[in-house]
Amino acid sequence: MSQTAITPTREENYPEWYQAVVRAADLAETSPVRGCMVIKPWGYSLWEHIQRSLDAMFKETGHVNAYFPLFIPVSYLEKEAEHVEGFAKECAVVTHHRLTLADGKLVPEGKLEEPLVVRPTSETIIGEMYAKWVQSWRDLPILINQWANVVRWEMRTRLFLRTTEFLWQEGHTAHETSEEAMEETRRMLDVYRVFAEDYMAMPVIIGEKSPGERFPGAVHTYSIEAMMQDRKALQAGTSHFLGQNFAKASGIRFQSRDGVEEFAWTTSWGVSTRLIGGMIMTHADDNGMVVPPRLAPRHVAVLPIIRTDEERAVVMPYCESLAAALRAQCYDGRPVEVVLDTRDMNAGEKSWEWVKKGIPLVLEIGPRDIAGNSVFVGRRDRGRKERFGMDRAEFVASVAAILDDMQRTLLARAQAYRDAHTRVLTDWEDFRAFFTPRNAERPEIHGGFALSYWCEDPACEERINDELSVTIRTIPFDADAHGAGACIRCGNAARKRVVFAKAY
Amino acid sequence: MSQTAITPTREENYPEWYQAVVRAADLAETSPVRGCMVIKPWGYSLWEHIQRSLDAMFKETGHVNAYFPLFIPVSYLEKEAEHVEGFAKECAVVTHHRLTLADGKLVPEGKLEEPLVVRPTSETIIGEMYAKWVQSWRDLPILINQWANVVRWEMRTRLFLRTTEFLWQEGHTAHETSEEAMEETRRMLDVYRVFAEDYMAMPVIIGEKSPGERFPGAVHTYSIEAMMQDRKALQAGTSHFLGQNFAKASGIRFQSRDGVEEFAWTTSWGVSTRLIGGMIMTHADDNGMVVPPRLAPRHVAVLPIIRTDEERAVVMPYCESLAAALRAQCYDGRPVEVVLDTRDMNAGEKSWEWVKKGIPLVLEIGPRDIAGNSVFVGRRDRGRKERFGMDRAEFVASVAAILDDMQRTLLARAQAYRDAHTRVLTDWEDFRAFFTPRNAERPEIHGGFALSYWCEDPACEERINDELSVTIRTIPFDADAHGAGACIRCGNAARKRVVFAKAY
Repeated sequence: MSQTAITPTREENYPEWYQAVVRAADLAETSPVRGCMVIKPWGYSLWEHIQRSLDAMFKETGHVNAYFPLFIPVSYLEKEAEHVEGFAKECAVVTHHRLTLADGKLVPEGKLEEPLVVRPTSETIIGEMYAKWVQSWRDLPILINQWANVVRWEMRTRLFLRTTEFLWQEGHTAHETSEEAMEETRRMLDVYRVFAEDYMAMPVIIGEKSPGERFPGAVHTYSIEAMMQDRKALQAGTSHFLGQNFAKASGIRFQSRDGVEEFAWTTSWGVSTRLIGGMIMTHADDNGMVVPPRLAPRHVAVLPIIRTDEERAVVMPYCESLAAALRAQCYDGRPVEVVLDTRDMNAGEKSWEWVKKGIPLVLEIGPRDIAGNSVFVGRRDRGRKERFGMDRAEFVASVAAILDDMQRTLLARAQAYRDAHTRVLTDWEDFRAFFTPRNAERPEIHGGFALSYWCEDPACEERINDELSVTIRTIPFDADAHGAGACIRCGNAARKRVVFAKAY
Repeated sequence: MSQTAITPTREENYPEWYQAVVRAADLAETSPVRGCMVIKPWGYSLWEHIQRSLDAMFKETGHVNAYFPLFIPVSYLEKEAEHVEGFAKECAVVTHHRLTLADGKLVPEGKLEEPLVVRPTSETIIGEMYAKWVQSWRDLPILINQWANVVRWEMRTRLFLRTTEFLWQEGHTAHETSEEAMEETRRMLDVYRVFAEDYMAMPVIIGEKSPGERFPGAVHTYSIEAMMQDRKALQAGTSHFLGQNFAKASGIRFQSRDGVEEFAWTTSWGVSTRLIGGMIMTHADDNGMVVPPRLAPRHVAVLPIIRTDEERAVVMPYCESLAAALRAQCYDGRPVEVVLDTRDMNAGEKSWEWVKKGIPLVLEIGPRDIAGNSVFVGRRDRGRKERFGMDRAEFVASVAAILDDMQRTLLARAQAYRDAHTRVLTDWEDFRAFFTPRNAERPEIHGGFALSYWCEDPACEERINDELSVTIRTIPFDADAHGAGACIRCGNAARKRVVFAKAY
């Protein structure tokens, strides 16, 4: 068996493999501040590319960006009963506004009359502003998005997947009618689906969350759910129909077209730096990170292979002109991004470094390649032994097509993986076996997604969770399309076939 | 006298004029959270354009972005003596990590072992990470920038100029040598100067701060200083040479080329949403905001003037094809951004709305303009009565040139204003008169910038501040170039001619 760059491999220990990939690609690390991560330059540039693509999609659908305060007065949180219940247990509370030296130590001073919470999400503070901005139906809809940091005090954290502070976007919209708000909720869910599939190459199932998994205060919560390579589900984005709950809590009232005072209908929707975790667990392999070309900060690494000064005189100009020729090519509406890595280090190590970072293409260029007017190409979606030589001009002319092919290959591969680990299950014993690890030491290895009937009784959902740590990840929009069935747990008549899985 | 859109005018009451411009342009408003502002969509889009331009300049100079935690353990702040002194008095302190209901009210619970401060600036937490990342001279330089929110508890706040929470970027770099760090400090100061002048059309003086105005913990602080239309100075960006102070506080040590363990040399530099305040106070007039074309979210508003359905059938297609033709033009490396405003409202009001928002060009298009195949143009750098008709094709062909001309006009105008209110003063009585308001009710009306000698004694600086509320804004890099002189306050021999002004 060939050696891999990441130890342990996915097969050997999935959670440790994940940490090792993050480390090897230099994406992020834990900070000395409890639960908070440092997003390192390569990881942050992934976020910049996610932001840029999503932001364009938000603007195309009529949204504008704005910025609201980091702090929320405690009394605002109190206004929506389920909301406070959902967030009060895990929030950072600001109680003082200065520090003073006492016995050689800094202690808090200047107690606030009302404590402030560092926003875990901004429905309440944004609702307060919308209540001021909206008087008439003419002021609607409001279609605003915010890029921001949020804080939820987490006891068990994991880089990108669950951290106390994380970066996200939160859309908050207000509408005249329930129908319009629902349309918006579904539109943004679809924006997330398209982004996940077309940019991240991460296939997702869209559908509604069961009541037990709803956003605190929402009437309906929809999500995109992806399967990771340990077959667990990752909730990668949510879109909430909030009905009039938050409008009532914040007082977002308007004069309707009929001259009647009504409460607005609101929505909220968000994705976060968790997406980077999803990208890792969808595409990375035992050699490290794999970045889908459409979100790659750099598409090609050009590595000159030089042993002598004589070789340098030949190789460097060739590599520079190659890089220039590649940069003149256009992929996905932007110039191909090339890094010419001239650092003085071992050629093999250097090549492996880019492999571990997940750059789509690595070109190794030595005197022999130059003699043949060719390039030696490593595609990150293929194995190390599948590197190939290619005519230089042909490579330059086809670089965009190669990246395009990689993007499609990654999606197809992820789709095939998900399909291979998804089963329609109608029998409880099969269901139990599907979710029971074959090996007690490797609890992460289990079946995947089960498509099974559910009677819609929360008690069945809870029992399954208690017994197998399996939950309903989503009720797909076509859940009713499979005819009647029997609930996988209680056997009673059931109408909906839903997606069960273990989850992050 | 013609009426103005903003009441009061700059002449009547400058501080109130400022608030009125912010309100009329819908840039931002105060929030119910003490000292925190809400940046509204038009204001936020100015920030997005500032970000985009600056970010490109940072990347061109070799920097990458990353993200560090929002929270800083109190003990980190303590490490640098001047730094803690500078920031401990005005910071938000997180002391608890949950809320619980007691007597029907939410109260803080889960006390932290060590309180956390919401970052007022990130030298200490970033230094802590750099200390881990740097072992050898090969790991240097580190050239990282962060886009983030920061919090400094301010007692008296003013939208954009001074708020408890604000958005900014903070560059943090670490270097092998003092020379290299100083070069970086000056390079980034120059990036700020170029940005201020070429993008914001805001002329600035660059130079060093006097010791009394240094960043807490810095060895040298440099800044860009601009004159606002009330003749006060605005510090619009700073670049700090931190020497080895923070490297020693955080333990950023490296093995030098000579095999000796040394402390790194660090810098930090930042600009914030305060720049938007500077943009307003440099260019806005008594009709509202004026946005420099290079930073304008939209360059042209096309306003169809329609009274009947018949007219609509003619005017709308003309406006749509005009908008399309303009969008096909390129200004400053991006397509001309056009808003076709079809809202059903009074034409005059609609036009004034765009004037108040400061969009560079407003086109009003009615049947008469169409008959003449022309457009009716309002340039925001000219008066309302200077609107003019222009051949449509000619306007489309020259729109980029017109925007370019506006950009240059705004800079030249601001430069002329500053020059007209800058005096070389060598006599204390003249100096005092220059800074003494002629009218006690209008304390904001005074001379402007005084170029005067200073003996470098902090006592003289303090006396001037006590007597006239005037401070040394900057010691220009050519302060020594004017020969010897006498200190404006004490009359003793002085080598440096510095810039005195009242300041924001």
